[in-house]
Amino acid sequence: MNHTETRAEARAAPAAGEAANPVLVVATRGDMVESRHRGAFAVVDPAGRVVVSAGDIERPVYPRSAIKPLQAIALVESGAAEAFALGDAEIALACASHYGEPGHVESVRAWLARIGCSVDDLECGAQPPYHESSLRALLAGGGRADAAHNNCSGKHAGFLTLARHLEVPTKGYSRAEHAVQQRLRGVLESMTGLGLGGAPRGIDGCGIPTIGVPLANLGLAMARLAEPADQPAPRQAACARIRRAMAAEPFMVRGTGGLCTRVIEETRGRALIKIGAEGVYCGALPGLGLGLALKIDDGAGRAAEAAVVRLLARLGVIEAGSALLRHPVRTRAGVVVGELRAPPDGPF
Amino acid sequence: MNHTETRAEARAAPAAGEAANPVLVVATRGDMVESRHRGAFAVVDPAGRVVVSAGDIERPVYPRSAIKPLQAIALVESGAAEAFALGDAEIALACASHYGEPGHVESVRAWLARIGCSVDDLECGAQPPYHESSLRALLAGGGRADAAHNNCSGKHAGFLTLARHLEVPTKGYSRAEHAVQQRLRGVLESMTGLGLGGAPRGIDGCGIPTIGVPLANLGLAMARLAEPADQPAPRQAACARIRRAMAAEPFMVRGTGGLCTRVIEETRGRALIKIGAEGVYCGALPGLGLGLALKIDDGAGRAAEAAVVRLLARLGVIEAGSALLRHPVRTRAGVVVGELRAPPDGPF
Repeated sequence: MNHTETRAEARAAPAAGEAANPVLVVATRGDMVESRHRGAFAVVDPAGRVVVSAGDIERPVYPRSAIKPLQAIALVESGAAEAFALGDAEIALACASHYGEPGHVESVRAWLARIGCSVDDLECGAQPPYHESSLRALLAGGGRADAAHNNCSGKHAGFLTLARHLEVPTKGYSRAEHAVQQRLRGVLESMTGLGLGGAPRGIDGCGIPTIGVPLANLGLAMARLAEPADQPAPRQAACARIRRAMAAEPFMVRGTGGLCTRVIEETRGRALIKIGAEGVYCGALPGLGLGLALKIDDGAGRAAEAAVVRLLARLGVIEAGSALLRHPVRTRAGVVVGELRAPPDGPF
Repeated sequence: MNHTETRAEARAAPAAGEAANPVLVVATRGDMVESRHRGAFAVVDPAGRVVVSAGDIERPVYPRSAIKPLQAIALVESGAAEAFALGDAEIALACASHYGEPGHVESVRAWLARIGCSVDDLECGAQPPYHESSLRALLAGGGRADAAHNNCSGKHAGFLTLARHLEVPTKGYSRAEHAVQQRLRGVLESMTGLGLGGAPRGIDGCGIPTIGVPLANLGLAMARLAEPADQPAPRQAACARIRRAMAAEPFMVRGTGGLCTRVIEETRGRALIKIGAEGVYCGALPGLGLGLALKIDDGAGRAAEAAVVRLLARLGVIEAGSALLRHPVRTRAGVVVGELRAPPDGPF
């Protein structure tokens, strides 16, 4: 892998029939494996060396929400975070796919008010809270989910903050041609070491562009977030600020019982992992100075979760006996009848 | 494939590293394929000839709820359905993974009362309705989901009815050694043409045994449900009764907007398909005298849905222009940004 900034443009989208990635996770039930999840991952150092990998790590994947910590760099590096006196909670929310619990939603609303915006300025769309009892409470109280409940509302509040700071119109901040999205693309190019002008592109669930990037380059970008010694001083400071915020406010990054939150808590910030839709995780490992990126081919979140904790265990970042490694399959009545696990001949 | 009743016992569970099945469905977003779903399927005639197939159809899969129409055979063939004067709605509910809408739940409660049972006799566990506005209404009214809302409550009401008719204790009807489950296993063995004594076994989400059966044999069983000419007369009558009930009451088989319901309606009963958990569909095609069985390796319901309608289109059972073949991927705000589709080099 070549990590220089002059690397060739990203490849175009490939055909569907490529070689199969390895099975990373199986779901068992009773006597046999019931379902199988294939995928690929890369663990990379800040010089772009691939330390551990499995599967095709040069095929572009959409990182989706897994790169929110990279997108938050623009918010901090620009001076916007300082200008609006954002604290750890807000910066962690900018990196978050939160569960829509009251603690998340109220923080986002207060933040929006502080920058002279409201929930109507969010372009992410309404979404019911992931967190079940928060959803029940909302519905039982006759409420309806709005854009502040959207798991991306903190990221979008960050985009609005950046637009305010750049003194550009906030409306349309989610479109590729807007100054905010242009900034984000620039950060992504320099962190991944990849020209993205010709990269495959789509629209994320929250309406912003998502750009196809190989896992190897996503791993590099996360390694640089963990250990940005080769970056300019303002970038180094921004990365440190983001690492500190995620480590200080793990609840804000996801929510009650969520894997990102539990991993950041259990590792005391040595693994800053972030989920993305369709089976993606990215992570910065500040202690080891490494980055990781993982994608389950079929997009299953359950498999991405089981895979990323096994990768962290293999790297020694979480203990072999950690409860994070247990993924029981249960009946409706709660009886354990199977589990998600790594196959014995797999890469973990 | 050998369809005789004396066929060798089912194979033991295989290792996880077998050859990859083909990609049946991809999820696109913008310029590229974002996620890929592999799987296998078999279309079989009542003589056991495989008419169309893809992937490994000899590897056992858990059929889960996709064989409820086969399990309902015991209810009808035993005379229990007639003794308790079950109508089409109840028999369709016995074949159903329903959405927990009021129409389903009230019918199950009335049926239970008629056989001298109540929701407390159901051993399937509580489950919130799949149907979103029914769930909202339940919660907004301060209610809680119980076992009657469980998508399997009709099947379990059928088990209770069979236990009553056999004059055996109803308690424990979900356990493998109970007379009800023994009957079901006997029906499954004769319909699949496979001795299941040594077959891989697990516990389903609703607490009953689920038995690993190759897709080829599941396809045969569904072909016999469609066209049971080689079966004893009571079995032929039971199959006809079940086909008639599913065709007459498609809402009861699934619910508002559900694929099974829509396919049965749109084909006017020429495709009686039934979903199973973890990416399974089975179907009886009475007009063609064929059966089908399909499993997505990773267990994704979205892919199983996209695959089974493409298989039905290939068989000419649904029109090429049917809305059933459209599976857009949308943002939270509802904008179409991709789709589920078959890859151009795939088997459809």
